[in-house]
Amino acid sequence: MAKLLTPSEYVRGILSGDRLLLARAITLVESTLPAHRALAQEVMRQVLPHTGRSARIGITGVPGVGKSTFIEAFGAHLLQGGPERRLAVLTIDPTSRISGGSILGDKTRMDALARHSRAFIRPSPAGLSLGGVAARTREAMLLCEAAGFDWIVVETVGVGQSETAVHDMCDLFMLLLLPGAGDELQGIKRGIVEMADLVAVNKADGPNAEPARLAAQHYRSALHFFPKKENDWAPEVLTCSALDRTGLEEVWSVVQRYLALARSNGSFDERRARQRRQWFTESLLNGLHDWFFALPHIRKRLGEMETAVAEGSVSPFWAAEELLQKTVFDR
Amino acid sequence: MAKLLTPSEYVRGILSGDRLLLARAITLVESTLPAHRALAQEVMRQVLPHTGRSARIGITGVPGVGKSTFIEAFGAHLLQGGPERRLAVLTIDPTSRISGGSILGDKTRMDALARHSRAFIRPSPAGLSLGGVAARTREAMLLCEAAGFDWIVVETVGVGQSETAVHDMCDLFMLLLLPGAGDELQGIKRGIVEMADLVAVNKADGPNAEPARLAAQHYRSALHFFPKKENDWAPEVLTCSALDRTGLEEVWSVVQRYLALARSNGSFDERRARQRRQWFTESLLNGLHDWFFALPHIRKRLGEMETAVAEGSVSPFWAAEELLQKTVFDR
Repeated sequence: MAKLLTPSEYVRGILSGDRLLLARAITLVESTLPAHRALAQEVMRQVLPHTGRSARIGITGVPGVGKSTFIEAFGAHLLQGGPERRLAVLTIDPTSRISGGSILGDKTRMDALARHSRAFIRPSPAGLSLGGVAARTREAMLLCEAAGFDWIVVETVGVGQSETAVHDMCDLFMLLLLPGAGDELQGIKRGIVEMADLVAVNKADGPNAEPARLAAQHYRSALHFFPKKENDWAPEVLTCSALDRTGLEEVWSVVQRYLALARSNGSFDERRARQRRQWFTESLLNGLHDWFFALPHIRKRLGEMETAVAEGSVSPFWAAEELLQKTVFDR
Repeated sequence: MAKLLTPSEYVRGILSGDRLLLARAITLVESTLPAHRALAQEVMRQVLPHTGRSARIGITGVPGVGKSTFIEAFGAHLLQGGPERRLAVLTIDPTSRISGGSILGDKTRMDALARHSRAFIRPSPAGLSLGGVAARTREAMLLCEAAGFDWIVVETVGVGQSETAVHDMCDLFMLLLLPGAGDELQGIKRGIVEMADLVAVNKADGPNAEPARLAAQHYRSALHFFPKKENDWAPEVLTCSALDRTGLEEVWSVVQRYLALARSNGSFDERRARQRRQWFTESLLNGLHDWFFALPHIRKRLGEMETAVAEGSVSPFWAAEELLQKTVFDR
């Protein structure tokens, strides 16, 4: 990591929109060193009043659905809409091997967007658990907002519970699907379709145009089986081709309609307040769990206890009480 | 609570099928007093080798769907099938006000079953959180198994995440629905339909017979949109009338077919091993959380921190770190 700065140097740089300092501040919040964490917390504390003024869009879909191409095309469409628009793209990928701070992986994936003067692309920090990646992505998102990015796209490849993590940090959650009506849902995890505010069947081009239209029709009637969202929004299903850049205007207009509804009926602010409380609880529990599972007695006994419990030779309740007794209860 | 016995007195009584001692042992495991907990753990440890030889069926559905009537009719059908069959019915209801150990509430609800010599009915322990109710219900389930009950039904009214808790302690998860195709799903929480191994549209009697049939058809095609279960089971949708006692033979035969498949392809044992590991992790985390949230500093500061976080005046990450610093990190 480059030389550390003072909190106010980071904050000044971020607020002035300095992309290099923004990138360095994100690298700082991604660090797990205690000294870096303390500095990062202070930076976060100072930028907080300057965050929140963006629309946060989460995007998920199975590998091969064309997420990068879609984000590149959607991003270009969004940025063309006005010279004041600025877009940051973040990823949640707990399997990421990209070295911290490098954007090499994404440069090759979202070429044009990465070169755009009003776009900023940042991959997942490497070597962290999903909880860690999600927590750092939230902080990166807030830093981008403080730096003046008014559109944030958070993308996930759908490993583990990462769709839920992305859903819980966004204002609108978009699911990309492939043409083919039904069977490709095999690759989508349970509950993901129900979380979507907007479903887009991508690759609706050439011979896939008709299958995509049928798939969209199919999903549209399937979505009727789901309970209505608490904010009165009925999820929409569209087709598009990121490759041919068709259907993007429709996606964009649904995004705007969704945000307008959510902002006017108060559900936008409610969802954000709920998310902030959720981030707090998760941060608290993640910290508590990290501390607990690093205790020497737990590190020593947990594995053998788990095996005995799965085999059925030890009561799960007794095993838990035994471990707690020796660690926290007796303290 | 009645006078405490020694662990071996409880265990001997339970293993001999003494219903009074079974009931007293369940009351013991429901107690939160430390001395009772220690005794309960010892009883659980001793009965563990005698548990697991039952089929565990979870049943959920919105209030008014007729769960009690269904369980009464289904239970009668099950018990008629052979003089060796024994059925225990447990409930998961975190809102329960019934005083510990009394079965008054259920006697009025499942009258005939409560009087049956081979049935045992036990309501939720009162005044516990969902985590607490679920943990105690799992222990009660194991005690019932040790007492020779080879069929366990766990019923939930669907408060909080109780369906998930029931799903995670059962071999087969059944969802009861009302006739009316679609709109009554409004009352069913997201993700519940996807968890069901068997859906039964109840109240398929009189003028409701045709709507029930249509609803079942509707759900059947809707279920095609969900990914296949890992055990290769394709969830079935049936109609029945608990009141008229029709369709129960069909429900019963699907239950048997499901159990036969799960037992033959190994998914029955896998699901149970996974559940035991899960119970262990949950017990461990529940115990850790109970301890943590009872710490004086947390009790004092948590509420105000939550409010500040929801309002957006304090960073969720900073608030969490601050609380952890003062409690566990500095220990």
